Amino acid sequence: MSLKLVIGNKNYSSWSLRAWLAMELTGSPYDEVRIPLYQADSHKRLLAYSPTAKVPVLQSEDGTVWDSLAIAEYLAERFPEAHLWPFGQAARAMARSVCAEMHSGFVPLRSHMPMDMKRNQALAEVPEEIAADIRRICAIWAECRARFGQDGPYLFGHASIADAFYAPVASRLRSYAVELPADAAAYVDTIYRWPAFQRWYQAALQETEIIE
Amino acid sequence: MSLKLVIGNKNYSSWSLRAWLAMELTGSPYDEVRIPLYQADSHKRLLAYSPTAKVPVLQSEDGTVWDSLAIAEYLAERFPEAHLWPFGQAARAMARSVCAEMHSGFVPLRSHMPMDMKRNQALAEVPEEIAADIRRICAIWAECRARFGQDGPYLFGHASIADAFYAPVASRLRSYAVELPADAAAYVDTIYRWPAFQRWYQAALQETEIIE
Repeated sequence: MSLKLVIGNKNYSSWSLRAWLAMELTGSPYDEVRIPLYQADSHKRLLAYSPTAKVPVLQSEDGTVWDSLAIAEYLAERFPEAHLWPFGQAARAMARSVCAEMHSGFVPLRSHMPMDMKRNQALAEVPEEIAADIRRICAIWAECRARFGQDGPYLFGHASIADAFYAPVASRLRSYAVELPADAAAYVDTIYRWPAFQRWYQAALQETEIIE
Repeated sequence: MSLKLVIGNKNYSSWSLRAWLAMELTGSPYDEVRIPLYQADSHKRLLAYSPTAKVPVLQSEDGTVWDSLAIAEYLAERFPEAHLWPFGQAARAMARSVCAEMHSGFVPLRSHMPMDMKRNQALAEVPEEIAADIRRICAIWAECRARFGQDGPYLFGHASIADAFYAPVASRLRSYAVELPADAAAYVDTIYRWPAFQRWYQAALQETEIIE
């Protein structure tokens, strides 16, 4: 059985993008199943793949793996030669910390600035709780880059799960036209130059579904 | 440098309990720093340990590791002989899936039934969204036990990070006097018989801070 990754809309589903980038990092072939969300039959179609009826979900010969972070860890363990986590225990400890912080946190940013890759418009007003999230994210990026980013333009040098987890944030910061410190703006550029991200982004621009 | 785990109140801090049980599973010595939450100086004391001013946080020679799930993965990687994740790739895939679901989900349960180990009183009314969380949790436990629980009473046979992540739920189900299917009730008993959990629980009962 080959790997099958089930995702939502490329324009909107930020958690799908995280798992998809991790999958791309493996270099392994896989099947992609796209299920547009918020359609009349979405829930029914999702339940056929996932016990939580959420995306992303990965089907493998080890069974169903759900939730972006579990998928990332599963792939990192299954494809050790692809180095989905950074080299070195200290770098991995920080990478996992910032991914877990993304996974459970930044609720204001995630709620009020949902991913919409086609968007090109600032919020009328950026509430302080979102501004605080953005400051924290810029601090995370700066610390990762300073401590572990010597060997390349990504958070830990080479592209890793940490970049997969923050790529949807980079998309938001650009599509909502947020002014950024120079180093954070440079990292957003890095994400947009990432070939895998570009493939997803170009596909997102072609999608026709609209979610209000 | 030895490992130092910073936690909150044992009666209230469910995320601290998860990391602490993972730490106990390693069998390694460590220092425990307890910082009671919601006190006048809590935030200041936390910032000395953690960039997010949240518990739990682990200090190690690899730097600061924050967030319960990152701490668990860090410890699993650092102490492979302790088998913090279950044996077998399929079992680990499911264990990580259910831990990630706990980490980002069950918001109604977490919001309206906060951990309070001393409590012994049902909610006046259990809203449907909480009942749905409880049904899902019972289904998770049943599936883990059925597929991977042959060699012991825990979710994956031996005690693992999955049990550490669901132990605070077991506490809630008991302290909020939730009626459960027999197999779920038996698993709650397993958690209460877990020696490490008992040590935390007995310490929680001795705490004097009250959080309204």
